[in-house]
Amino acid sequence: MAQVGSRLDPWVHSYAARTGGMTASEIRALFAVAARPEVVSLAGGMPYVNALPLDAIADTVARLIREQGASALQYGSGQGLPQLREQILDVMAPVGIHAHADDVVVTMGSQQAIDLVVRIFCDPGDVVLVEAPSYVGALGVFRSYQCDVRHVAMDEQGLDPNALRTAIADARGAGKPIKLIYTIPSFHNPAGITQGPARRRELLEIAQSAGILLLEDDPYGLLGFDGTVPQAIRSEDADGVVYLGSFSKTIASGLRVGWAVAPHAVREKLVLAAEASVLCPSHFSQYAVSAYLSEQPWMEQVAAFRELYRERRDALLAGMESAFPKGTHWTVPQGGFYSWVTLPEPLDATAMLPRAVSALVAYVPGTGFYVDGQGRRSMRLSYCFPDPERIQEGVRRLASVISAELDTLATFGPAGPAGSGSTSSPSPDLA
Amino acid sequence: MAQVGSRLDPWVHSYAARTGGMTASEIRALFAVAARPEVVSLAGGMPYVNALPLDAIADTVARLIREQGASALQYGSGQGLPQLREQILDVMAPVGIHAHADDVVVTMGSQQAIDLVVRIFCDPGDVVLVEAPSYVGALGVFRSYQCDVRHVAMDEQGLDPNALRTAIADARGAGKPIKLIYTIPSFHNPAGITQGPARRRELLEIAQSAGILLLEDDPYGLLGFDGTVPQAIRSEDADGVVYLGSFSKTIASGLRVGWAVAPHAVREKLVLAAEASVLCPSHFSQYAVSAYLSEQPWMEQVAAFRELYRERRDALLAGMESAFPKGTHWTVPQGGFYSWVTLPEPLDATAMLPRAVSALVAYVPGTGFYVDGQGRRSMRLSYCFPDPERIQEGVRRLASVISAELDTLATFGPAGPAGSGSTSSPSPDLA
Repeated sequence: MAQVGSRLDPWVHSYAARTGGMTASEIRALFAVAARPEVVSLAGGMPYVNALPLDAIADTVARLIREQGASALQYGSGQGLPQLREQILDVMAPVGIHAHADDVVVTMGSQQAIDLVVRIFCDPGDVVLVEAPSYVGALGVFRSYQCDVRHVAMDEQGLDPNALRTAIADARGAGKPIKLIYTIPSFHNPAGITQGPARRRELLEIAQSAGILLLEDDPYGLLGFDGTVPQAIRSEDADGVVYLGSFSKTIASGLRVGWAVAPHAVREKLVLAAEASVLCPSHFSQYAVSAYLSEQPWMEQVAAFRELYRERRDALLAGMESAFPKGTHWTVPQGGFYSWVTLPEPLDATAMLPRAVSALVAYVPGTGFYVDGQGRRSMRLSYCFPDPERIQEGVRRLASVISAELDTLATFGPAGPAGSGSTSSPSPDLA
Repeated sequence: MAQVGSRLDPWVHSYAARTGGMTASEIRALFAVAARPEVVSLAGGMPYVNALPLDAIADTVARLIREQGASALQYGSGQGLPQLREQILDVMAPVGIHAHADDVVVTMGSQQAIDLVVRIFCDPGDVVLVEAPSYVGALGVFRSYQCDVRHVAMDEQGLDPNALRTAIADARGAGKPIKLIYTIPSFHNPAGITQGPARRRELLEIAQSAGILLLEDDPYGLLGFDGTVPQAIRSEDADGVVYLGSFSKTIASGLRVGWAVAPHAVREKLVLAAEASVLCPSHFSQYAVSAYLSEQPWMEQVAAFRELYRERRDALLAGMESAFPKGTHWTVPQGGFYSWVTLPEPLDATAMLPRAVSALVAYVPGTGFYVDGQGRRSMRLSYCFPDPERIQEGVRRLASVISAELDTLATFGPAGPAGSGSTSSPSPDLA
């Protein structure tokens, strides 16, 4: 007997339960507008790959194809290219991780690594503890596997240990299995906060004593502005932590090469899940990254990126300091791409976004970084892509919008709440 | 309270239910041996990318990085590069598909497309109907989403319509939802069979009248040896078919670029699922494919591949004709990479594999292409990668092993059955 679909979607009754949680963000349409060149976008998390030595990379890749094309263009191992896994050990040395190449799984960006970890660990309804706020792309994965995502408060040192203990006790008290604690300890996206060494140790001890796997996402670890590199939580525990790294911010996001370091048995399952999902990561991209690491001065390039992003961070902070109305607060990131801005009461960053885009400046409203509607007063500002002048122009425009919003409110009082603004699926713009 | 794990895997009690279905194949270890250069491998599905014009590709990619590197190395759209989606329309013209670039989703190989389709449609226990035998990589996906996979018999024209009707009636009679009919109509992997136009029409009518989505996987469609291109089932129905294409066999598998063409609403959900899974496909690979398609004579290269694979197919067939013992049967593929060989009773291709590898020849036992233990007497022989002389040498070695096996059986009678030989996860070797 034929199933009956709607005229709009003949398959509307056929989707899996998990697909119900996959909805396009209502702010997507706005971001299409925000992509116009006259808009200063403080929304996207795009690294400034324009600063890469393109001629040198072109030479490296061309030689690679000429000399090793028959391998680089062929299927590869599901776990990733052995020589690249060796090189990844060197890349992780600064964050204090000592591992074996066999512990490493190369993935198509660390987004795929998050997907694979959740795939092997999480049944529908399993609890995942995440920071409040948390990375929109990870939230999208957790939701697509029907996890019970619970936000845990942060303070100025990051994830709050007492709040974490309480969240664990609450979930366990309700008989809910907790599968993961997901954290971005360094230069947090979107909060712009970094956990200190003592905080990291305390969080690890909590995870260890509760027997919960810690998922440490570290795409920005090498991008600290004072040149020191925070030591990864994984450097203290090889069995209790899955560590995720990425070349998206230190080399190029368009290559889609990241990795996971996992305890042996977990690593085996990650490889099986990766093979089911994509057979193997792109050999072409992996060979390109490997050749870049061995032929180009990649550490110097990371230092150049650090300096470039520090200047842009400074431009953002100076702009906010001079133009944002009193009562606006923000975090001062010591690395990475983002500052988290909280507006004066009773402003609503989600409701304000259309007016900001009309004023030719864009940001991501705070609600996008929560699964539960929190974050209305907040927004994420990115300083990674526009140059310092554009950043300052963007901040001036945004300051005018905020001030106008405050004036309107002083005159007419607050409007009703707008839509939820939740970003159910991570548009690549928001990475 | 801490969960208690084993010494081997501290997280053994934490995995999701779906992870129970992810186990490494018992024949993997053998394939590690089979990768030694002295072994003639008739096992792998690796395209002969060595035949590509590497110097020309090196020049194309180098120019691309120099001139468009800032885009090619950046994040892209979750749906894929617009210009590549336009070019994919031209690539699909020979199979008779008329679509809009907006109907196309670029994926990381068609393996990822299968994963995304199953992700949005299949709850645990949902029925997926597949050919008997079927592509090992698709079976791995179906199992990883806990589908109820049911094999449907093939005849010399491919998927058998009566068997399909019966399978639908059986599942529906038992109250089980059927979400997908998965088929490889052209140059089937592993069966080496192609559905004729009338068969395609009949299968489509069955799917339509039952209201079941047809998932048409077509990586080999352009590789027909007489130069004619079978028309895709999707060319007859835009609403009832999701069509999957791939550049892995016509350009290069190491790029990991494939695509899906889907009805509008399905396409939207595929993009959301893709974004949750990997944010976006590799811009670097997509730009490389796009530049190759526009700058290189790609149709001529496909014709060269066709001729190369035809020669190798001929070498395999001639070798089997002259050396295989009476009672051995095989399919005669008109395109693609594979012939499906059935051994004389009571031989067991899974049990025989270790002896074949000792005799320096490898194949994939038939059981790998079933979820239910069928296929013991069968094996898949690939002729895509070794040159004709090596293929003939491999067939001679295999013929000796088969003959020796028959002699042993004539003398001592059959041994008990070996392990199941099931390939639960698709090693890239088996693609």
